[in-house]
Amino acid sequence: MPDQYRILKEPDLRAYLSALPEVSGKLGGVPADWTITEVGDGNLNLVFIIKGSTGGIAVKQALPYVRLVGESWPLPLSRSHYEYLALVHQARLAPSLVPDVLHHNEALALVAMELLEPHIIMRRGLVAGTIYPRFIDDITTFLAQTLFFSSDLAMPAAAKKEGIAAFAGNHALCKITEDLIFTDPYRVAEQNRWTSPWLDATAAAFREDLDVHVAISRLKLKFLASPEALIHGDLHTGSIMVTERETRVIDPEFAFYGPMGFDIGAVIGNLLMSYLASAGHERAPGERHAFETWVLETVEKVWTEFSRKFLKLWRSEAKGDAYPPTLFAGGKGAERLETERQAYMARLFADTVGFAAAKTIRRILGLAHNIDFEWIEDEKMRALCEARSLHLARDMLVNTASYAAIGAVTRAAREARDWQPNFAR
Amino acid sequence: MPDQYRILKEPDLRAYLSALPEVSGKLGGVPADWTITEVGDGNLNLVFIIKGSTGGIAVKQALPYVRLVGESWPLPLSRSHYEYLALVHQARLAPSLVPDVLHHNEALALVAMELLEPHIIMRRGLVAGTIYPRFIDDITTFLAQTLFFSSDLAMPAAAKKEGIAAFAGNHALCKITEDLIFTDPYRVAEQNRWTSPWLDATAAAFREDLDVHVAISRLKLKFLASPEALIHGDLHTGSIMVTERETRVIDPEFAFYGPMGFDIGAVIGNLLMSYLASAGHERAPGERHAFETWVLETVEKVWTEFSRKFLKLWRSEAKGDAYPPTLFAGGKGAERLETERQAYMARLFADTVGFAAAKTIRRILGLAHNIDFEWIEDEKMRALCEARSLHLARDMLVNTASYAAIGAVTRAAREARDWQPNFAR
Repeated sequence: MPDQYRILKEPDLRAYLSALPEVSGKLGGVPADWTITEVGDGNLNLVFIIKGSTGGIAVKQALPYVRLVGESWPLPLSRSHYEYLALVHQARLAPSLVPDVLHHNEALALVAMELLEPHIIMRRGLVAGTIYPRFIDDITTFLAQTLFFSSDLAMPAAAKKEGIAAFAGNHALCKITEDLIFTDPYRVAEQNRWTSPWLDATAAAFREDLDVHVAISRLKLKFLASPEALIHGDLHTGSIMVTERETRVIDPEFAFYGPMGFDIGAVIGNLLMSYLASAGHERAPGERHAFETWVLETVEKVWTEFSRKFLKLWRSEAKGDAYPPTLFAGGKGAERLETERQAYMARLFADTVGFAAAKTIRRILGLAHNIDFEWIEDEKMRALCEARSLHLARDMLVNTASYAAIGAVTRAAREARDWQPNFAR
Repeated sequence: MPDQYRILKEPDLRAYLSALPEVSGKLGGVPADWTITEVGDGNLNLVFIIKGSTGGIAVKQALPYVRLVGESWPLPLSRSHYEYLALVHQARLAPSLVPDVLHHNEALALVAMELLEPHIIMRRGLVAGTIYPRFIDDITTFLAQTLFFSSDLAMPAAAKKEGIAAFAGNHALCKITEDLIFTDPYRVAEQNRWTSPWLDATAAAFREDLDVHVAISRLKLKFLASPEALIHGDLHTGSIMVTERETRVIDPEFAFYGPMGFDIGAVIGNLLMSYLASAGHERAPGERHAFETWVLETVEKVWTEFSRKFLKLWRSEAKGDAYPPTLFAGGKGAERLETERQAYMARLFADTVGFAAAKTIRRILGLAHNIDFEWIEDEKMRALCEARSLHLARDMLVNTASYAAIGAVTRAAREARDWQPNFAR
C-alpha cells in the first residue's frame, strides 16, 4: 500500500524512502544505517529528520487533524499538496530562499525536502537577540518576487484565474486564519488565552471595542475576497529559518490567492513583537540595545526594500493584464503611471499596517502564542511587553490612515516601548 | 453522435429535440410539424425558436467563435456551461425573473429554455419610449438576491471559494470584457468605431486623457481581482426581456465571481444612455418627456431599491463569514454594524458609478454599439446624444467621489441633456 495514506512510523518511512533514488542518493549508505528523528514542534504536522552517511533530508507529513489539539479538530491532508504547489512556485521565483523539494506524495500528504542545517527558526534567534544581516535583502526579495509575479501586474488574467482555482480547495487552512486571527481574539472563545490576570481588562476591552471590531472585520473581508497574489499565508518568524548568511522561508501550507499585505504585515507584525518583547529578555540594562535598533531598522527596510523591488519589477516586468502599458504611453503617460504606482503602494502599505496589527493581537489574546512572549519567565514582565504590543497594534488597526509611512510605525513602536499600562493589580 | 459537438442545422436539431421528453412534451404534436426559426441577433451564438402545437421553446447554441466576427475570433464553447450554471443559480435566488431551463447539453454547448413570449428585448422598448412599471421592483430583486446570496455576507468562505473556482474557467468571456470595456476604447484599436467625424476629436481626447486612463485601469483591476459575488457580467438592457408586466434577465454567459458594482452599473449606465439617446428618437418636441422622467426615476430607484433590499437581506440573512454577528452583539454593536453597512454601500455605490461610466464609454467609442444610439438616423443628432453621454460618463469616471448619492447622478444626467458639445464641423 505504498500510496495509501497512513501515519508513517519509522520502519515504514525507512522502507518508503529507500525506494526513492533521489532520496537514497542524497542520504548515502544503506537504509538500515539512516537515523530517523521526529522533530515536529509546530502545531499541525509530523516532521522527520533523516540522516545518512553523506547527507540529510527533512520529511514533513500532514496529519488528518491539528497536532496541537488532536483528532477532535480534523484538518484535510490536501494541505500538503498546496504546500508542495506553493514551494514549487516560490522556488521558481525566489530560488535559494526556500528548501529544495526532493519528493512529494499527494496521497501520503508527504513532502521530502532538503535538510536545512545549521539553520534555526528565526524566532528563536530573535529571542536570543541575534542580528541577521542577510534577512532584509532576502525576505524582501522573497516577498517582491513571489507577490509581484503572481499578481495581475505580471500574470495574464486567464492564468491568474487558473491559479486562484488551483488553490481554492485550501479553504480549511484559510478558515483557521479567518477564525483564529480575524474573529476569535475579539469575542469570547474557549481557545483564547492571555497572560492573566494582568491582561484580563485589556482582553475584555478588545472584546467590547467596536472601533476594533469594524477594523478587523474590514481586514477579514479583504482576506476573504481579495485574491491579489499567491501569498504564503503564514509568514511569521517561525516560518523562516536562518543562519547569519542564509534565509529560507518554509511551511507555506496556508498558501492561497489573497491580499499581499497579509504576508508583508506578517513579517512586520512579528518583528514588532520581537522588538517589544526584547525588554523581557534583557539580563542587564541596555544589553539588547543594538539588537533592538536592528529590529526597528529591519521593520523599516522590510517595507522600503520590498517596495523598491516590487516597483522595479512593475517598471520592467509588467506583462499582466492590469494597467496596460498602451494606456500610459509617452513621457506623460509614464509619469502618470508612476504616480499611480505610488498610490497603489500606499494602499498596499495601509493593508500591511492593518494586517501587521491583526497578526500581533492574535498572538497575545488568541489561541496560538509565540515564544517571543512565552519565554519571558516573569509573567508580569511578559504582560507588560504584551500590553505594549497590544497598545501599538490597536492604534495601527484603528488609525491605519495616520500611518502614512513606515517611519510612523517605528516611531509609534519606540513610543510603545516606553508606554506603561495601568495594571489594576 | 448525439453528444458530439457540431453546429446544429434544422433537421439535426429537430431529431435531437424529439428525443427529449421534457421538450417534446412542451411543444406537443409530432416533431415533423414543429417550426424552427433561427433568430439570433446577438454577437456570439445561434438562437432557435421552436414552436409546436401546444407551446414553444428557445434553444441557444454556442458557436466556437464570435458570431459577429467569424472564425477568426475563436471563443470556447464552455461559455454555454457557465451560462447554464448561472441560470440555475439565478433561478434558485430570483425565481420567475429568469427563463426556465428545460435542458442542457454541455458537449453540444446547448441550452433549451422556456420561450419568452410576448416579451421583447428591453432596449427595443426603451428606444420606442415604452415605460415598464414592473422593471424597478424586478431588477432590484434580481440584483439584491443574486448578489447578496453569493457574497461573503451570505456564503461560508469554503462554499464561496468553490464557487469562484467553478467559474474560473470562464476567463475567455472575462477577457472580452477586459479588452472591449476596460482597454480598447482608450487606445488605438482596429475594432473601435464612433460616429465620425463629429466624435473624432472626443475619441482622440479619450485616448490621451490620463485621468481617464488611471480611473479605467483602477476599475479594470477591480474587475480582475474582486470576486465579491457571482455576477451576471453583461447586464445591459439587451440582456433583459420585458413586457409591461414581466421582467426576465437572460444571457448570463459572462457570469463569474466579480465586483457587484459591475452588474448594478451596467443597468444604470444603460438607462442613462437610454435617457440621453431619447432626444434622438423624438418626433415632436416633448413627446418623450414622460418616458424620460420615468427613466431618470428608474435610475434613482434601481440604486435606492437595490440598496434597501440588499441591506434588508444583510440584516436578516447574514450567514456568511464576513462581519461575524458575535463581534457586533448588543444594541451598540447593532448600531455600529448598521453604520458599517452604510459605509459598505457607499463603497459599492462608488463602484457602481464608475462601472456605469465604463459601460457607457465602450458603447460609443468601442466595438459594440447599441441601438439606443444606432437607431438615431440623423448622424449629427446621434453624435450629439453620444457626446452628451460621454460628457456625463467621463465625469462619473474621473470624479466618482463627487457623486455622493444617486441624486447627483440624475442631476448630472439632466445637465448633460442640455449640454452642447463644440463640434468643430
